[in-house]
Amino acid sequence: MFASDNASGVHPAIMAALADANRGHALGYGADELTARANRAFKQLFGDQAESFLVYNGTGANVIALKGLVRSFEAVFCSAESHLWIDEAGAPEQFLGAKLITLPAHNGKIRIDDMRPRLGDIGFQHRSQPRVISLAQCTERGSVYRPDELGAFCDFARAHGFYVHIDGARIHNAVAALGGDCKRLFTELGVDVVSFGGTKNGLMVGEAVVVLNPALQVQYPVIRKHGMHLASKMRFLAAQFLAYFEDDLWLHNAAQANAMAAYLAERLKAVPQARLVAPVETNMLFVELPNDWLAPLQQQAYFHVWRADSSPGRSEARLVMSFDIERAHVDAFVARMGQLAAQEQ
Amino acid sequence: MFASDNASGVHPAIMAALADANRGHALGYGADELTARANRAFKQLFGDQAESFLVYNGTGANVIALKGLVRSFEAVFCSAESHLWIDEAGAPEQFLGAKLITLPAHNGKIRIDDMRPRLGDIGFQHRSQPRVISLAQCTERGSVYRPDELGAFCDFARAHGFYVHIDGARIHNAVAALGGDCKRLFTELGVDVVSFGGTKNGLMVGEAVVVLNPALQVQYPVIRKHGMHLASKMRFLAAQFLAYFEDDLWLHNAAQANAMAAYLAERLKAVPQARLVAPVETNMLFVELPNDWLAPLQQQAYFHVWRADSSPGRSEARLVMSFDIERAHVDAFVARMGQLAAQEQ
Amino acid sequence: MFASDNASGVHPAIMAALADANRGHALGYGADELTARANRAFKQLFGDQAESFLVYNGTGANVIALKGLVRSFEAVFCSAESHLWIDEAGAPEQFLGAKLITLPAHNGKIRIDDMRPRLGDIGFQHRSQPRVISLAQCTERGSVYRPDELGAFCDFARAHGFYVHIDGARIHNAVAALGGDCKRLFTELGVDVVSFGGTKNGLMVGEAVVVLNPALQVQYPVIRKHGMHLASKMRFLAAQFLAYFEDDLWLHNAAQANAMAAYLAERLKAVPQARLVAPVETNMLFVELPNDWLAPLQQQAYFHVWRADSSPGRSEARLVMSFDIERAHVDAFVARMGQLAAQEQ
Amino acid sequence: MFASDNASGVHPAIMAALADANRGHALGYGADELTARANRAFKQLFGDQAESFLVYNGTGANVIALKGLVRSFEAVFCSAESHLWIDEAGAPEQFLGAKLITLPAHNGKIRIDDMRPRLGDIGFQHRSQPRVISLAQCTERGSVYRPDELGAFCDFARAHGFYVHIDGARIHNAVAALGGDCKRLFTELGVDVVSFGGTKNGLMVGEAVVVLNPALQVQYPVIRKHGMHLASKMRFLAAQFLAYFEDDLWLHNAAQANAMAAYLAERLKAVPQARLVAPVETNMLFVELPNDWLAPLQQQAYFHVWRADSSPGRSEARLVMSFDIERAHVDAFVARMGQLAAQEQ
Repeated sequence: MFASDNASGVHPAIMAALADANRGHALGYGADELTARANRAFKQLFGDQAESFLVYNGTGANVIALKGLVRSFEAVFCSAESHLWIDEAGAPEQFLGAKLITLPAHNGKIRIDDMRPRLGDIGFQHRSQPRVISLAQCTERGSVYRPDELGAFCDFARAHGFYVHIDGARIHNAVAALGGDCKRLFTELGVDVVSFGGTKNGLMVGEAVVVLNPALQVQYPVIRKHGMHLASKMRFLAAQFLAYFEDDLWLHNAAQANAMAAYLAERLKAVPQARLVAPVETNMLFVELPNDWLAPLQQQAYFHVWRADSSPGRSEARLVMSFDIERAHVDAFVARMGQLAAQEQ
Repeated sequence: MFASDNASGVHPAIMAALADANRGHALGYGADELTARANRAFKQLFGDQAESFLVYNGTGANVIALKGLVRSFEAVFCSAESHLWIDEAGAPEQFLGAKLITLPAHNGKIRIDDMRPRLGDIGFQHRSQPRVISLAQCTERGSVYRPDELGAFCDFARAHGFYVHIDGARIHNAVAALGGDCKRLFTELGVDVVSFGGTKNGLMVGEAVVVLNPALQVQYPVIRKHGMHLASKMRFLAAQFLAYFEDDLWLHNAAQANAMAAYLAERLKAVPQARLVAPVETNMLFVELPNDWLAPLQQQAYFHVWRADSSPGRSEARLVMSFDIERAHVDAFVARMGQLAAQEQ
Repeated sequence: MFASDNASGVHPAIMAALADANRGHALGYGADELTARANRAFKQLFGDQAESFLVYNGTGANVIALKGLVRSFEAVFCSAESHLWIDEAGAPEQFLGAKLITLPAHNGKIRIDDMRPRLGDIGFQHRSQPRVISLAQCTERGSVYRPDELGAFCDFARAHGFYVHIDGARIHNAVAALGGDCKRLFTELGVDVVSFGGTKNGLMVGEAVVVLNPALQVQYPVIRKHGMHLASKMRFLAAQFLAYFEDDLWLHNAAQANAMAAYLAERLKAVPQARLVAPVETNMLFVELPNDWLAPLQQQAYFHVWRADSSPGRSEARLVMSFDIERAHVDAFVARMGQLAAQEQ
Repeated sequence: MFASDNASGVHPAIMAALADANRGHALGYGADELTARANRAFKQLFGDQAESFLVYNGTGANVIALKGLVRSFEAVFCSAESHLWIDEAGAPEQFLGAKLITLPAHNGKIRIDDMRPRLGDIGFQHRSQPRVISLAQCTERGSVYRPDELGAFCDFARAHGFYVHIDGARIHNAVAALGGDCKRLFTELGVDVVSFGGTKNGLMVGEAVVVLNPALQVQYPVIRKHGMHLASKMRFLAAQFLAYFEDDLWLHNAAQANAMAAYLAERLKAVPQARLVAPVETNMLFVELPNDWLAPLQQQAYFHVWRADSSPGRSEARLVMSFDIERAHVDAFVARMGQLAAQEQ
């Protein structure tokens, strides 16, 4: 199934770690040994200054991360195509009370220049005060900000007293694509808080709010409970992350998904009816297909139609590769395309 | 450990069900077969009119349940000792925006008569309008509302246009104590929404908002996402509940915890230094102990001090029995008391 | 001064009414005779079904009006240029918790067709549920919705279970332009709630939330206090509205402002350097001027630059006519333009 | 009428100032000369460090004042009898999102010792973090905190990282009773923010948020608009305050109200049926009266029954003296009591 990376199941090593963690009693709410170890693992990834707060899902990670950065009379810059703006059912508006300022998405990414006109709002009493730049890495389009691009956002933020938040629901795919070093990719650039995904890359349930800016950390334990994401049996979140980081499983999983996306993109070159809408940088492909191909291909490997009737007689499909997709799945999908093409002649 | 029922682990049958659910891909966000089956299981418990919405934890279950019942200019009656008022880090105030009106707790339970003075607030523009009665069943003291008591609350609610919410973080202990029939204990009495716990009774992670009032159901899917509790890999929450209800595992687990509490209470009769503060109705005991017994007993089986120095030289301890506590644990604990008593002489 | 209609002062008849109302004691919070009479006056305007709730300012009127229509997991359609979206400093997001869905503004007005793509959000759990259409009448551009246009919005709303809210900060200018009959222009079309301005048209302080939909009225007294807009000495708000409606003062004031805008537009035809950006329908003109005219003209009659450098060497100015602007002010302004044009040659 | 000090009208000097301010156009939203002068007047009262933000009413002043002090995961200590807790229709819960922690009222006042048990919540992730102490000066019972008492609260606050807020809806009565020096009574003690009332002491409409802590000031302009309390024609709020402070009118008005309360208390000594429930420190009396006296006395001078049937056959009345109450009003009221007493014999 190419519907979403959260349609996949749990990686066997994660499942084994869960079974392993199920020994006897342990204090709840994070006061257990596994949670302490998971925090150390996050420090190894992001540097000693990092503190991690495990949560359940991506909506929670994003909203809780932002809660420590923005007050209700302030505002968050985000892409008009961002999950934060589009697909959180108003959770940010309710829980933050703050305004989201949407910027145009260019292949999923926002641009610094599109923020400049709002700098005049600073100190202007009629306007929510800009405070945070929220960037998805990778974006909802699968594109990635290069380190120099992300660094420029961080510099711009510092110059104006803003914070930088990373929506990392698919941070693994981005990190795998960019060389694997979280310190270099986030901490050293000056990112303040990261929503660190896990569920889309082989976990059963679990994300983390990773706070890189030490000045902000003290408030997050209460914010997490306030945000309804404090797990009682926390050890079972922690155990997943420990297995996830063991031997770089998380990067191997992401690299596999990315590789399958690249492989599919390569093979689509031979299918003239399938047009790649954007370059493939991570694990997602946006492909325009003939409308009458949609149903048979969905039967082969279910996927979501992203923009129906994006051009006459054609629609844009989103194809998402998970950690457990293999060449055979891709080959079968492309073979089905071949059959469809043959039938048309 | 007697610290909390969420210090226990995962029941083996639940763990097996999780492994079993980990087959291939499944659509996320509840559009999978296991979630549909879990919903049918809740209907079998509460009646066909029930709709269930799986969530991650008790804070989420309570706040999401209430979100469908109360607007920010309305108010919720609850006990001054309730988890809702004391231990949610302000989540209800922020996510509901509504006022919580605290009523005195009598062995954990509130009384209808204590609500009557606030009836005058209805239609009075200076006051948050009373709209919901939130009752913990069992209470944070381990006490239970008998069906006639709960029925009286429901009648009172209906007479004044209020809704009734059950905080059922330990609903299993209450149901096991009251005979096991959820239809009779909740649905037929006129309860509107139940927060149905699971994590404290053998699940790894998972609670449910069970909406019994059909007129209110349509809004809950969006409220759950808005409340940051929509699980992507929902099948793994659903699988736990399916195993939980299989052969009444949930009631057996709860009955075991209740039985161990009764057994410990019985055995404490022989320990004059340990005074039961309240009758034991479910799985919790509140016991006043000599202060110098606390540390050695906590070493034997860790527990929380509920009220330090509740009387001169003594403190109130909370002892919570979980599904996996057995007679041997209780016996060892009481034996340790015997040693301490002997040392004193 | 052409800066804003709230830069003008208080109409003498309003000031006299305030002095007149200052006799002895009166019960506060609206339990006085003048407030009762003001409510009757609103009923005469909008029909017997109307109930009015006096508030202090436009932000309060809009947010309180919407509070009765939308819950935090729902959404409000509004123009991307609306005051609601741009200039309320995040008050709607915080007090409603709801999402504002911005639609493109066409000369200030939104279009039904731009809402249609969001109809798919209805019942989709990942999206704030559309519930309200908020229309400014007149718009922030001074344009008006004709009754047939507004009627079409009301029909569309009814068809989808939405409510219709009117941001009437300048409702007087719109009503004066459209013939003066509020019943025909709002009530009979099916509008649910109106924010009825007053401060921009000769009041000292005062707006009203006029609730036309009887099913919604009961909640507004508490919402107003909850929204921090319940005046203790309400009689002084009521007295202003009574004088405002006496002998149609409000319409005469608005008609004067509209007439001066039309007169200025007419006279600008003789000034080729001044380009009207939009047709003048009420009391505001948006005029593109040479940049070096701005300062000298602002000295003559201060105004706000709406879009700096809207074209090379030129900027768009907003000129707002108030109830107390007369031909002499307009003539002097145009004469100053003549001088500037002469100097250039 | 003894119903409330907001049942009184507008002092003639205030009304004259309003008429006087009504000359020509002035920029809105506080960018006018009168508002600048009003701010200077507040600096003269509270010291140069003070910045004032005019708002409409007391609910707005309190909630906006607190918004700069508390985040939604934090908490405000207040009296269980405070207006903030009882009579704001949930505005604090909704606009702040924060928890109000109620403390017992001792003749209207709270005690430091009642806060100490909550110090353990600091850093405990399950609890809203205490952040603000909100004190009414004078209290809803008419009692006042002496400077040494208020100083002790400020010291306690500083020791624990809390802020101190004053609900000064009747600050004039307190200041008049305590000698008139706001610098000494608030600024020098270390108070952070004051809600400075005016409407109850002769203004038509108007209160101020006076921010004494310079580190907090920058955020209040936006908070005021965010809180829906930014007046467009601000000069008419400012003009009232300028007249209010001219020749200490505000203190003379308050002293008159206080004096009339003392006079009435003195005269009640001769009426054995009327029992003063608390000592009279400012302008309010709480008097227990026979139930059958209530209606005839309310006809003489209307007042609110504060606690019906406070003892068998008797109820507690609240009698509030305004700036415009004179000895003749008091004498007539006591005379009516005399008649009632005579009838009984």
